[in-house]
Amino acid sequence: MGEPAGIGGEIALRAWLRRRDDEVPPFYTIDDPERLVGLARQFGWDVPVRAIQLPESALSTFAEALPVLPVGGAPLARPGQPDPGDAALVLRAIDLAVAAARDGHAAAIVTNPINKDALYRAGFRHPGHTEYLAELAGTGAAAVMMLVCPELRVVPVTIHHALREAIELLSTAAIVYAGRVVDAALRRDFCIAAPRLAVAGLNPHAGEAGGLGREDIDIVAPAVAALREAGIDARGPLAADTMFHPAARRGYDAALCMYHDQALIPIKTIDFDGGVNVTLGLPFIRTSPDHGTAFDIAGRGIARADSLIAALRLAGAMAARRFSR
Amino acid sequence: MGEPAGIGGEIALRAWLRRRDDEVPPFYTIDDPERLVGLARQFGWDVPVRAIQLPESALSTFAEALPVLPVGGAPLARPGQPDPGDAALVLRAIDLAVAAARDGHAAAIVTNPINKDALYRAGFRHPGHTEYLAELAGTGAAAVMMLVCPELRVVPVTIHHALREAIELLSTAAIVYAGRVVDAALRRDFCIAAPRLAVAGLNPHAGEAGGLGREDIDIVAPAVAALREAGIDARGPLAADTMFHPAARRGYDAALCMYHDQALIPIKTIDFDGGVNVTLGLPFIRTSPDHGTAFDIAGRGIARADSLIAALRLAGAMAARRFSR
Repeated sequence: MGEPAGIGGEIALRAWLRRRDDEVPPFYTIDDPERLVGLARQFGWDVPVRAIQLPESALSTFAEALPVLPVGGAPLARPGQPDPGDAALVLRAIDLAVAAARDGHAAAIVTNPINKDALYRAGFRHPGHTEYLAELAGTGAAAVMMLVCPELRVVPVTIHHALREAIELLSTAAIVYAGRVVDAALRRDFCIAAPRLAVAGLNPHAGEAGGLGREDIDIVAPAVAALREAGIDARGPLAADTMFHPAARRGYDAALCMYHDQALIPIKTIDFDGGVNVTLGLPFIRTSPDHGTAFDIAGRGIARADSLIAALRLAGAMAARRFSR
Repeated sequence: MGEPAGIGGEIALRAWLRRRDDEVPPFYTIDDPERLVGLARQFGWDVPVRAIQLPESALSTFAEALPVLPVGGAPLARPGQPDPGDAALVLRAIDLAVAAARDGHAAAIVTNPINKDALYRAGFRHPGHTEYLAELAGTGAAAVMMLVCPELRVVPVTIHHALREAIELLSTAAIVYAGRVVDAALRRDFCIAAPRLAVAGLNPHAGEAGGLGREDIDIVAPAVAALREAGIDARGPLAADTMFHPAARRGYDAALCMYHDQALIPIKTIDFDGGVNVTLGLPFIRTSPDHGTAFDIAGRGIARADSLIAALRLAGAMAARRFSR
């Protein structure tokens, strides 16, 4: 469901409308069925909505109607206006998704965007969606974010920090951990037998041999060496500005980036609408669209479902690989 | 000429070969004519080389031969192997170019890449090419670098610094200065009557209202306000990751970026071969190709001249606008 004041409901309806020709793999949504019926009616979209119960399969329903596992309540929010009173429902949808994946009632989880502010006001204490999922997963391991579009995969080693803080937090251990998780995921879920990782330098020109900062020598280069010692095909530190043009991209399967914008600028420049966020290092497959709640256009039926559809497709493809072994 | 151990000579020859159909505006090069004759012969390229003397016009020569203003010596370097003994000649080529522009014997200067290491070993004391040009220009004003490709113009407000240092150096005054210089240049040399500037935030999501760093509130936002107060159409601080996709780019004429990779990643991702470096804030027009000396491929006749040609074309277009008033 995600944040009910956002575009999650309408893009789920829209994704179901694109279900033919295998464009979208079968999915069910965890939401309030009445709400979705109302949205479909409002936009004049021909989307029959059918409530399901687990372990009933959503597969047989999917061809004729959007299967909805009821989240167990009606959201208070109106489009663009989140309501802190919805926090329990929003979290419940996530809990139900994780339980479904754990119990074998879902091959993967796709999460619509949530609104952290609204959750915080209701007492939510996790830094974000991903950290909450990691806690529910119960493995204690840190999750690694990978952004994927057809032309590029990028992994920000540090994510939501002020740039100054990201530099302070950057460590050899964090780069090595991300590299190991990405290497394993590309082998397991992306059918890449020998993944090639490109590791960006922190500083311009990857520090120009120390002339533009020591971090690439002291922090990044030892991480690349450790990854190589572990048998992982990692190269770097590379000058970040020359890593992302088409010819350079052909040389690697994923780019490890040292901070948020170093990873997000190239992928959003290349593919703004179709990017998918994949969370690696969880025991289940989780993807999400690479956009926010979009309060400014919510409730108007104009939001594009491309990124959600790409997230559903990628989750489906990853699950097919993982569970067909 | 640029660094004679690099690809400067061969891309100049190659650019002349593309002179037909107005693809390249008339230019002369400041170099050693014998060296260029040797390169043309080595690659089997049909490029007659003709030495010229100023104030003789290169225009009449250009149709039939590459006009060369002799730099006054023969470089010692071999391809890929710079020689510190060439430093005086390399600097002399720059000095002659600036003198020619000042005396009305050139409408613009296009510089081939130099090798700073080789110059430093010979006692060169300027941080780089651009700073040397600024000193020769004698205005005392700081130069502003703008990178240009057909789809995007970006301006790094801080340039060749370690990322940590770039954050320290970033100031409201530097952003305002860059914005004023860019606004004036877009009006004067790019025929943009009302330039629109987009100003990137330093931190991810432009700092998310202070949650991800204070610099966007304390440093960037006041610069945007000051620019607006000066009548300049500036917007920001904007989240850098969502500024560079095609739809976003249509909303501005130049993006001011806070550090090197924030500016260089998007433009090199979009157009790796055709980018041009324009130096604003000098009394003369100066462009340069957006690549280095390329020692690894120098002397083989395989270097692409696209960026030099784009630099020549842009310099020509800017000069046509400036001098046709």
